[in-house]
Amino acid sequence: MQRIANLLVFKDDKVLLMKKPRRGWYVAPGGKMEPGESVYTAACREFAEETGALPEDVHLKGVYTMVIRDDQDEQTLDEWMLFTFVARGLSGVPMEENREGKLEWHDAAELGTLPMAEGDRTNLMFAVSSPGIQYGTFIYTQDFRLIREEIQRSEERMEP
Amino acid sequence: MQRIANLLVFKDDKVLLMKKPRRGWYVAPGGKMEPGESVYTAACREFAEETGALPEDVHLKGVYTMVIRDDQDEQTLDEWMLFTFVARGLSGVPMEENREGKLEWHDAAELGTLPMAEGDRTNLMFAVSSPGIQYGTFIYTQDFRLIREEIQRSEERMEP
Repeated sequence: MQRIANLLVFKDDKVLLMKKPRRGWYVAPGGKMEPGESVYTAACREFAEETGALPEDVHLKGVYTMVIRDDQDEQTLDEWMLFTFVARGLSGVPMEENREGKLEWHDAAELGTLPMAEGDRTNLMFAVSSPGIQYGTFIYTQDFRLIREEIQRSEERMEP
Repeated sequence: MQRIANLLVFKDDKVLLMKKPRRGWYVAPGGKMEPGESVYTAACREFAEETGALPEDVHLKGVYTMVIRDDQDEQTLDEWMLFTFVARGLSGVPMEENREGKLEWHDAAELGTLPMAEGDRTNLMFAVSSPGIQYGTFIYTQDFRLIREEIQRSEERMEP
């Protein structure tokens, strides 16, 4: 099963997004975990490879089960895990583009309207606006139309 | 790739552990995620199935990459993901035992000395004593001797 880690820099009310050429959809920089890697290491490595800059003050904000179903919603075609991190700092200046798309700063509020997969919108908006961790399952068609989602959230409580 | 979710109830300075008969090692109740399930749902479901009680105030404390290597540390034999949750509350009374072992309450401080896999000790002690989330890779032999570990930790910072 594939494991994907992505990372959203959120600094001065702006977020760093990558615009993918095929659909013009925005994503957070990220990619596949390597064997034996931790999710944290994978998110930082993938971000550095895709932007040329180093994330700082990195924290996990979401753990998602991603499912692709056929168009009749009868059969699962693929399933993977997505781990979404936020970084509140950045060292270095991101490239303007890489092999996969253009890197652009946007106001965090634009996460509500920029073109992207609907599950990504839910996850990235949670990551910049709410405390705690979000969990869930997102079920898509093969062309990334959201069929349904189930979401849970929690916040840490240290004292008994 | 297998995905395992476990859950440690931590209440009144006590933790609920399961003692497995084979080695006498202690673990937190948990088990395999089902297809399409979220990590949160899996942890709560597995805990309920194994204890007969319902966890409350559940929060993720650890995401781990678990690797089994051959005795010469030359080849990876298995790799899976482990998600560790803490619950600060409990509804219902846990069973005294289930098919997999005996359920016992212990002082949280005993996590330092009870027999268990060394990686589990690190993870469960973190879960009850430190704020934030722990990530890492634990590399074991086939008979669960810890070869090496790499650990990262983070805490949430909401304000810029």
